[in-house]
Amino acid sequence: NIRLSLPAVCFVWQVSMIILFGVFVRYNEEADTNWVYKKKEKNITSDIENDFYFRYPSFQDVHVMIFVGFGFLMTFLKRYSFGAVGFNFLIAAFGLQWALLMQGWFSPLGDDGKIKIGIENCLIAYGAVLGKVSPVQLLVMTLFGITLYAVEEFIILSVLNAKDAGGSMVIHTFGAYYGLSISRVLYRPNLNKSNHMNGSVYHSDVFAMIGTLFLWMFWPSFNSAICNHGDGQHRAAINTYLALASTVLTTVAISSLFGKTGKLDMVHIQNSTLAGGVAVGTAAEFMLMPYGSLIVGFFCGIISTLGYIYLTPFLEERLKIQDTCGIHNLHAMPGVIGGIVGAISAAAASKEVYGDLGLVNIFSFEGSNGTRLPTVQGGYQAAALCVALCFGIGGGTFVGLVLKLPIWGDPADEHCFNDEMYWEVPEDEESIIPPVL
Amino acid sequence: NIRLSLPAVCFVWQVSMIILFGVFVRYNEEADTNWVYKKKEKNITSDIENDFYFRYPSFQDVHVMIFVGFGFLMTFLKRYSFGAVGFNFLIAAFGLQWALLMQGWFSPLGDDGKIKIGIENCLIAYGAVLGKVSPVQLLVMTLFGITLYAVEEFIILSVLNAKDAGGSMVIHTFGAYYGLSISRVLYRPNLNKSNHMNGSVYHSDVFAMIGTLFLWMFWPSFNSAICNHGDGQHRAAINTYLALASTVLTTVAISSLFGKTGKLDMVHIQNSTLAGGVAVGTAAEFMLMPYGSLIVGFFCGIISTLGYIYLTPFLEERLKIQDTCGIHNLHAMPGVIGGIVGAISAAAASKEVYGDLGLVNIFSFEGSNGTRLPTVQGGYQAAALCVALCFGIGGGTFVGLVLKLPIWGDPADEHCFNDEMYWEVPEDEESIIPPVL
Amino acid sequence: NIRLSLPAVCFVWQVSMIILFGVFVRYNEEADTNWVYKKKEKNITSDIENDFYFRYPSFQDVHVMIFVGFGFLMTFLKRYSFGAVGFNFLIAAFGLQWALLMQGWFSPLGDDGKIKIGIENCLIAYGAVLGKVSPVQLLVMTLFGITLYAVEEFIILSVLNAKDAGGSMVIHTFGAYYGLSISRVLYRPNLNKSNHMNGSVYHSDVFAMIGTLFLWMFWPSFNSAICNHGDGQHRAAINTYLALASTVLTTVAISSLFGKTGKLDMVHIQNSTLAGGVAVGTAAEFMLMPYGSLIVGFFCGIISTLGYIYLTPFLEERLKIQDTCGIHNLHAMPGVIGGIVGAISAAAASKEVYGDLGLVNIFSFEGSNGTRLPTVQGGYQAAALCVALCFGIGGGTFVGLVLKLPIWGDPADEHCFNDEMYWEVPEDEESIIPPVL
Repeated sequence: NIRLSLPAVCFVWQVSMIILFGVFVRYNEEADTNWVYKKKEKNITSDIENDFYFRYPSFQDVHVMIFVGFGFLMTFLKRYSFGAVGFNFLIAAFGLQWALLMQGWFSPLGDDGKIKIGIENCLIAYGAVLGKVSPVQLLVMTLFGITLYAVEEFIILSVLNAKDAGGSMVIHTFGAYYGLSISRVLYRPNLNKSNHMNGSVYHSDVFAMIGTLFLWMFWPSFNSAICNHGDGQHRAAINTYLALASTVLTTVAISSLFGKTGKLDMVHIQNSTLAGGVAVGTAAEFMLMPYGSLIVGFFCGIISTLGYIYLTPFLEERLKIQDTCGIHNLHAMPGVIGGIVGAISAAAASKEVYGDLGLVNIFSFEGSNGTRLPTVQGGYQAAALCVALCFGIGGGTFVGLVLKLPIWGDPADEHCFNDEMYWEVPEDEESIIPPVL
Repeated sequence: NIRLSLPAVCFVWQVSMIILFGVFVRYNEEADTNWVYKKKEKNITSDIENDFYFRYPSFQDVHVMIFVGFGFLMTFLKRYSFGAVGFNFLIAAFGLQWALLMQGWFSPLGDDGKIKIGIENCLIAYGAVLGKVSPVQLLVMTLFGITLYAVEEFIILSVLNAKDAGGSMVIHTFGAYYGLSISRVLYRPNLNKSNHMNGSVYHSDVFAMIGTLFLWMFWPSFNSAICNHGDGQHRAAINTYLALASTVLTTVAISSLFGKTGKLDMVHIQNSTLAGGVAVGTAAEFMLMPYGSLIVGFFCGIISTLGYIYLTPFLEERLKIQDTCGIHNLHAMPGVIGGIVGAISAAAASKEVYGDLGLVNIFSFEGSNGTRLPTVQGGYQAAALCVALCFGIGGGTFVGLVLKLPIWGDPADEHCFNDEMYWEVPEDEESIIPPVL
Repeated sequence: NIRLSLPAVCFVWQVSMIILFGVFVRYNEEADTNWVYKKKEKNITSDIENDFYFRYPSFQDVHVMIFVGFGFLMTFLKRYSFGAVGFNFLIAAFGLQWALLMQGWFSPLGDDGKIKIGIENCLIAYGAVLGKVSPVQLLVMTLFGITLYAVEEFIILSVLNAKDAGGSMVIHTFGAYYGLSISRVLYRPNLNKSNHMNGSVYHSDVFAMIGTLFLWMFWPSFNSAICNHGDGQHRAAINTYLALASTVLTTVAISSLFGKTGKLDMVHIQNSTLAGGVAVGTAAEFMLMPYGSLIVGFFCGIISTLGYIYLTPFLEERLKIQDTCGIHNLHAMPGVIGGIVGAISAAAASKEVYGDLGLVNIFSFEGSNGTRLPTVQGGYQAAALCVALCFGIGGGTFVGLVLKLPIWGDPADEHCFNDEMYWEVPEDEESIIPPVL
């Protein structure tokens, strides 16, 4: 019974968070009143050197992407807007607390930007199962998802010393295959019973564009949030921006050329226009060159839109993967492309382009990695992509099996994509009788 | 006649503003072309030290909260969205000019962040009377509200030297009781005549979520906007963020557990999820500790949601307070809780936790307050809460009586919650006949 | 056939962009890995001196204005929301790439803020022809518009050394007359066949308010984005902010006073409230004084709203200019006013108010302009306004003739303002049958 299980899970987890935060979490030194002393010690003369001023604007932009961007992107269904934006809100609010803890355990000096990013993978995964699971299942999915993410990220970034500024691998590839695997395990053969609800209406498509646009605009902040101060953040923002711009044009082109009627399809405009931002993630901080970013975006727009037209139906019919939002086209394929682009461009890095210090700064060729060559780094990047894939598919399959237990209150096939299951839905629009004045 | 009175009030007030600005307002030194000289005098080497770069991002976030956040939060009514977002726009645009003047008179060096915050109390008060008053009444309410606010804030912050970074007391407690008192005086015994308009439709609830999410996301900017540069702003943002996250989970839990049907209610998700941000306001800059913020948010989500379920009907039936948006649950109770949390945590402040310099910085224990002890500060904080309550209830009652005069063009009972009174409303959706192509 | 021509144009142009970027565009030094060396050379000690941290928050705000602001502002039509927000997205994404190139050719050290602003003029022009042209025509219009803009801006800013921080002349005047001239050439005598689609519904007006509010809030960032660091940006933000606040009140007043029924009209609130931001653009960085900004906003609100009531019908009937969004009232007239205000306030600049260094900084009285007097600067400002007008009207007429060629797939008169032409539109709202649970 969802009436009891949802509050139970919420309370137990929030109380656990309070206890764990009480034991493990303190302000870092830049947020502590003792910073006045630290400033003197470190000879910092201006308050503007506090990391807050470097990171906070990007942090807020990522915030907007998570809550408004992902939330509204999923409001496109005609009668699942409450669930889209409301449950997205719930799992983000829980996920960020859990991510803060996990991140703290795995990398004691994690900064804010990083923490936020950690929860995106669960929101991506939500896209695959949108409308087909209960809020309790979403919370369970989030708990496991962030735990797996923290381990996977530790292996990729710290053990392999791979670079992934915008998270093409650690976030998008992992998150998308995590969600798709869950959706595969939870396959519903009779989902067509709620076919009449699995579509948009005019205004729900406009709401979804709010999500699309905020994601598109702030993606440069997302990809640059955890880059090196200075030129690193600057370059990541430019690369992402150009890749996204290029994607828009090819998405429109393919949507018109291959669409059934030659007309544009809002599903493509809402989703595929973002694929370039995913694919440029790993290499965002690299010297990808402006035209390189445009090329990445160019192909991602094509591949992602074709994915919506040909691959999504194939996945559903043949592989029994029901992917409500088409995250395979928006996150999985572009994420893998991003990993490959990252590996190639890392392997091709040269002292002529980056400068000696540049190579060290960008790839952290220092300490135990001091003698690593760019070509070798390329190999490690490729290995990182495999790690992300394995964690995504393996973890998703496991969590899918957990979620298959008949205790989570998931909706029957005929009640999918319908807010009535979990929300008090107001009367319908047409019943408004405008009073005569 | 609203056709004449609204333009008259707008013109008279805007002309007054121009005259008063001409007499009283000049650029502060950081916005004046003479800053080049000041920089040399003060030996400032970088333009980034201009307060603009410290404050502008937070200032813009608070902007978004005021115009989009509050505006859209109130669009939930099925046919009062124009009034919600339009009149909110009007009173914010007027209020900020008046607040700028009042603030300048009471604290000559007020900075931008502070100014903006000053007008929130009127937007809060609007929530109580939404749909039941005319735009002229709103403008009068705003004029008095900001005047009272400036005096109250001067007493609390300057005379009592109480701290209230996020304004739990000076803004939320004051603003909420101001609005509730006005609503009490303007009690409409026959409001049930427009009951059929006092509710939401599906898409108006989605619009309201735009408001909720922007308020939620930018609340950390709001609470940190006027904190000390450096660790103060950093810490206030973290505390607010955690309190808000915690509130979401307990709001969902209570909404499901105590709701009539066991389903979630959008009213709770739209409003109660924000209560933690209100309640952590006063103590935002203190060393509340991350788990402390979570605890504050935990209880506020519970109390606020229970307020919507049990207290709002009680207020209406017994105390004759018709509170359209439930500001008693979102601002009044959490604001009082925030004041109490602030008093307790100030009284408990110790040199061990804050450091000598920290205590001085956070509580301004300097000059005439140089010998004040934290325990005494706690007492002053409690006194400040009483001041805010008195100003809110007293001022609201007075302004309510002014607004009861039969000259303001307020709507009849059967025309409440209806845009038709003051707006040209377009034809209805269903009359669209999609032309065949 | 739009099915082929739209993809063809998109592909050809995107491929051209990639080639041109490959040849011409490199990272500037602050985004290059070699910045570490440059920092040492220039003796820069802190990463926060990277221009990224000065500009990025404003850059993002301008972003939001372009994509969400302009996009949603135009969603007010009942059945053209997909086209409004979708085609705006398309031309912005193409335009920013082309603007980046043009700007680079004309001013080798152009920074990000500037680039973004360059594309606004095409979005403004879109407002005049909204619903009456095909996406291919929009792309052609954008290509020419940005090319003309780059030349015009070069003449105004570099040759004439005129100042135009917020682009009242170079963006708004030029863009508006460019769009109006195109609309004149493309005059459709039988447009009344689609009259039933040329209007709003309740929720489309609420969507449009999202656009209005984001434009309103971030206009201070727009006008200050390319000002001098420090007091210049600070002052421009304050001036814009006050002008906008003042405009809101006079817009409401005139809308109520002169409206047919004495009720407020959403068209005025959505558009005229922004006129003050346009008109204060040129003089934003000048010592306009706070009350001066209020006065500018005061009159612009009046003029713009009266324009919607009296001038727009006149333009359509007599001058055969069909101006869907009323850009003549929002951009053209306020832009010209802005140019005039700029000329007068430049001519009136004195050493007493600005200081010696201030005059030099604000008006770039150095090098070959070292001996120019403020009064002469006023003359150059007036000349700049004429240049903007000529480029707008001349360029628009030429491009209009190009777009009149019968090869672009524009909609027939009876299919204007209708998404069905270019978009797959979902079934209607009323056909939702809420399933019984």
